[in-house]
Order: sequence, then C-alpha cells, then structure tokens
Amino acid sequence: MALHKEPKVITDKDEMRKWSRTMRSQGKIIALVPTMGYLHQGHLSLVKEAHKHAHVIALSIYVNPSQFSPNEDLSTYPSDFHGDIQKLMSFPSAVDVVFHPYNLYDYGNGSKENFDDGVVSCIENSGLGHETWVRVQKLEKGLCGLSRPVFFRGVATIVTKLFNIVEPDVAVFGKKDYQQWRVIQRMVRDLDFSIKVIGSEVVRDSDGLAMSSRNVHLSPEEREKALSINKSLLKAKSAAEDGQVDCEKLRNLVIQCIAEAGGKIDYAEIVDQESLEKVETIKNPVVFCIAALFGKVRLIDNMEIKL
Amino acid sequence: MALHKEPKVITDKDEMRKWSRTMRSQGKIIALVPTMGYLHQGHLSLVKEAHKHAHVIALSIYVNPSQFSPNEDLSTYPSDFHGDIQKLMSFPSAVDVVFHPYNLYDYGNGSKENFDDGVVSCIENSGLGHETWVRVQKLEKGLCGLSRPVFFRGVATIVTKLFNIVEPDVAVFGKKDYQQWRVIQRMVRDLDFSIKVIGSEVVRDSDGLAMSSRNVHLSPEEREKALSINKSLLKAKSAAEDGQVDCEKLRNLVIQCIAEAGGKIDYAEIVDQESLEKVETIKNPVVFCIAALFGKVRLIDNMEIKL
Repeated sequence: MALHKEPKVITDKDEMRKWSRTMRSQGKIIALVPTMGYLHQGHLSLVKEAHKHAHVIALSIYVNPSQFSPNEDLSTYPSDFHGDIQKLMSFPSAVDVVFHPYNLYDYGNGSKENFDDGVVSCIENSGLGHETWVRVQKLEKGLCGLSRPVFFRGVATIVTKLFNIVEPDVAVFGKKDYQQWRVIQRMVRDLDFSIKVIGSEVVRDSDGLAMSSRNVHLSPEEREKALSINKSLLKAKSAAEDGQVDCEKLRNLVIQCIAEAGGKIDYAEIVDQESLEKVETIKNPVVFCIAALFGKVRLIDNMEIKL
Repeated sequence: MALHKEPKVITDKDEMRKWSRTMRSQGKIIALVPTMGYLHQGHLSLVKEAHKHAHVIALSIYVNPSQFSPNEDLSTYPSDFHGDIQKLMSFPSAVDVVFHPYNLYDYGNGSKENFDDGVVSCIENSGLGHETWVRVQKLEKGLCGLSRPVFFRGVATIVTKLFNIVEPDVAVFGKKDYQQWRVIQRMVRDLDFSIKVIGSEVVRDSDGLAMSSRNVHLSPEEREKALSINKSLLKAKSAAEDGQVDCEKLRNLVIQCIAEAGGKIDYAEIVDQESLEKVETIKNPVVFCIAALFGKVRLIDNMEIKL
C-alpha cells in the first residue's frame, strides 16, 4: 500500500530551519503545508497543489493551542500521528519532511492578569511567557471571529512562527477555511513575508460534505443532516446564477434549509471575497460562508459565487 | 574626510532581499542596523557593534509613520539623507548597504472606522490598507507605552517588516531606547525569528547628554537643563551603590533634580531589566528609565544598576 518511503520527521525547530536553508542553498523552492494533523483527502489536495509550485514539501503537524479558547475542543481535537505518517506514505504525492514539534510556545511563569481586551486562549490559560501576537485587525473580526475571538490571532501568530522556522517560498492553505486563507494572505502582504500564499479548493466527500478532521465526531445521523450545508449552498449558487442577487433572500434560503435539517446556524453570510465585508446585492465576486453546529460538532463550509 | 566609498543605496524591497540572499549564499553573516536617519555618533556605535557580529552591514533609514500618533512629531522629525550618506562615508566603520525605502505601507482605500482599542497612528490617519500589527502585549504597556500608546505596536510591526525584507542574522539596537530593545528581543523569541538581537550601550556627548536625533531641537538653554537627566541618574546609581536600595527615595532624588532644572517629567521608574516591571527595593539588576520634556522636546534616557 505504501507508495513512498517514510518522510523525514523533524521535531526540533533549529533542525527544521537547517533543512530548509540547505534546500534553499541547493536552489530548491520550498513549500510549507501547515496542518493540525489527522490527515484526510483535503490535506492530500494541499500537498498535490504544493507540488505545482515547489521542488520540496514540508508538511507541519501541530495542534496550535493558542487558536483555541479554554472552552473549545483542544483536548478532544483528533490526532493520530502514526496514522498520519502511514497516510502520507500512501498519498500519490510525497512530502519530504514532516515538521512535528512538541511545543512552540514559551510558557514562562508570568502572572495571568492583564489580558489585552479580554481575549484569552489556551496559551494564556497555561502560563504567560509568550506575549507577542500578530493580529489582522479587520479581517479577523467577522464570521468565525465573532464566535471564536482568539482564533485568528492564534492562527496568524502560529503561521508567523512556522514561516520563521520553515522559511518557505510557498505556503498552501485550504479555501475551506476561507477567512483563514484571506487573513494569512493579508498578513503576508502587510508584514512583507517573501512567501506566495496559495489557496487550494474545498475537497468534498462523495456525498458533498466538505472534508474536515472534525467530521470524525459526527454520528451517522448528524452527518446526514450536515449534508444540508453543501446542498443549500449549491441551491443558493444556482439561484444567484439564475438572477437572484438579493443576499437577504439567498441567506434565508440557506438558513431555512439547514435549520430544517436540524443544524444550528452560527452564521450564514454573503461577503466580498477580498474584504470579507457583508454584501447586500451580488455585484462583485462573493463567497457564501457558513458555520453551523450538528450535535456538538461545529462545521464550516463556503461557496464562491461569481456572476 | 571621506574614508569609504559611497554605500550602495537600495530603495526597493525586492532588491534589498535579493542583496541579502546573495550575501547569504556566499556564506556571509548579515547585520541590520535599523535607524530613522539623521545619524549621529550613537548610530555609529551601532554600526561598530554590528561589525563584531557580522561580515556585511545593512543600515536602514526609514521614518516609520506607524510609531507616531497623529499629534506627535512625525512631520518635524529631523531628516537629512544626503548628510547621512556623507556621515556614513566618514565613519571609521563602513556599512555595505543603506536601505532607504520611500514607503513600506499599503495605504488602500478602506474606511477609517473600527480602530482596535482606540489605538491610532499616522498610518490609520492616512488610510487603512495596512491592517496587520505585531504586539508585545506586556512589555509594550508601561514606561513610554503609557504616553505613546501606538509606539511599540508601530516599532514591533516595522521591525518585523524590515526583518522579513532584509533577512538579517543579527540586528543591533541602542539601549538608549531600552524598552524598545526589550520589546524586540521578546518579539524575536516569541515569533521564532532566527535573528540575534544585540543591545548597544548608550552613547553620550562629552557633557553627558544621551545622543538623540531629537537633541537638535533643543535650544542651548534647554540643552543645559537637560543635562540634569544624566547627572541625577548618576547620583541615583551612586546612592544605590552606597546602599540606598529604596526605589521611592531614589526616584524622588531624580525627580527633584530634573524638576529643579526645569524639566517636566513624563516618567521616572526603576524597573526589572527583563520584565520591565516596577521594583520597590533593588535586589536584581534594574534599569532606571526616564522620559522628560525640555521645552517641546521629549527626551528619554536610562541607567542600568546592578549591585
């Protein structure tokens, strides 16, 4: 079953950087595929995309505590490092290095008072050595930022750290996490990282459900209900293409469909593809973004609409 | 008078990065000396220090608008690029490249609403394309952070940008800006920059005044009065070495001396050298930090005290 030899696993950040610098000195273009592990076909598609832009691929597996708030699912986030390595060996596209650090934060012994604007992640909950945060002030606010106030601060910060450790030329992110992709793009522009950020298309199971490591927590019944997300997004896209450009009407269509299936909507917004600002009438390219709970599982999905 | 040939002046960030990467590929260790220009002997000492750690030196000259608030002295900050180049040629230690970008921010056309926690710099005042900020949450708050709330956010962000453009191995900062030096050190640790941050000692004129580009705005009388800063710091250090470890008493000594000379104190604090937290009794190494106004000119200075 294994198509490739085992990828090199690096756990130490200095060793990781050394590998990258050796590759660069040999004229190789380096891609980074950041993941939190529990790999699936969606991650494979990122690796496949990375191969189009680079000679060598580093895939990182690190569940980043700073993007979870203390009441979120850090402790139950699925992981299976051994299984991940097996999958990487059987993927048609190989990765050269798996960067799998044990911890990337300095926890220190500081006091836990004085949080900036009340934003607290699992990092602050465990100690306060680390105190530097990268924030993309406007893009971090809406959509997932509303119900997950620490999320994009944690993502922008850990991606900055990974960029500084791996020093890639290219980084590939899934467009399933659409807002995350836009946040990283903006951060790269604003902070002058010399890195090309690639957005890779959403990958779906044959039933249409967007692939996610969290899908494993869905019961068969919940999964069936969750199909309403993609189905309703397809309906909305089709309606828009048939001339319905009123976002209020398109949102109601989707909200009703997901609610009828038993999903609890967190948000269902039609936003500009770049600014992620809400749109009332579709004129420019938009993306319809959804977050909804099925049982205890929060799923996100989206669909780009360009008329 | 000129000892060296003119340094290479680079204004484009891609060209700057290309130069650095060429140097690195030749095995050269690269130092960055970030400045806002209007160079003096203090800057020379940074260049001299840089030579101890690196083969090639890039000195940046860029007055960073994002570290000024709209009511501060961005528009009157002194500059003399031609004079700076002349000085660099006559310095005993040469620099290889002067990085002198015209602008490093994307201004965009965004709305000016929704500032995060009311912090507004000259960047936001001119447009809102740029929206990514690096913040060192605890160290940025005290001392100069109190009266200059945008300052360290702007410094951490521009230094991140310069690090990503110049990609140095070493960066040299003056310990005259003590808090800035500590903020950058912490940022480099927390964000995993592969850069050694060097703090270079305060350089003083023969009369004891710490060198600063802003000194040019002092009238001869104001300058005379401003000498009270260094004089009183020396007195406090001497008193501490003679056994006076009560910070309240040491602070009063300095505050009185500067006030009598006609200076208006912004702050006079004795803080831990690493955490910059206020100290009541000197046990561990501390630094006595002062900011005071003489006329319209705000001066900062400090003295490390280790018993």
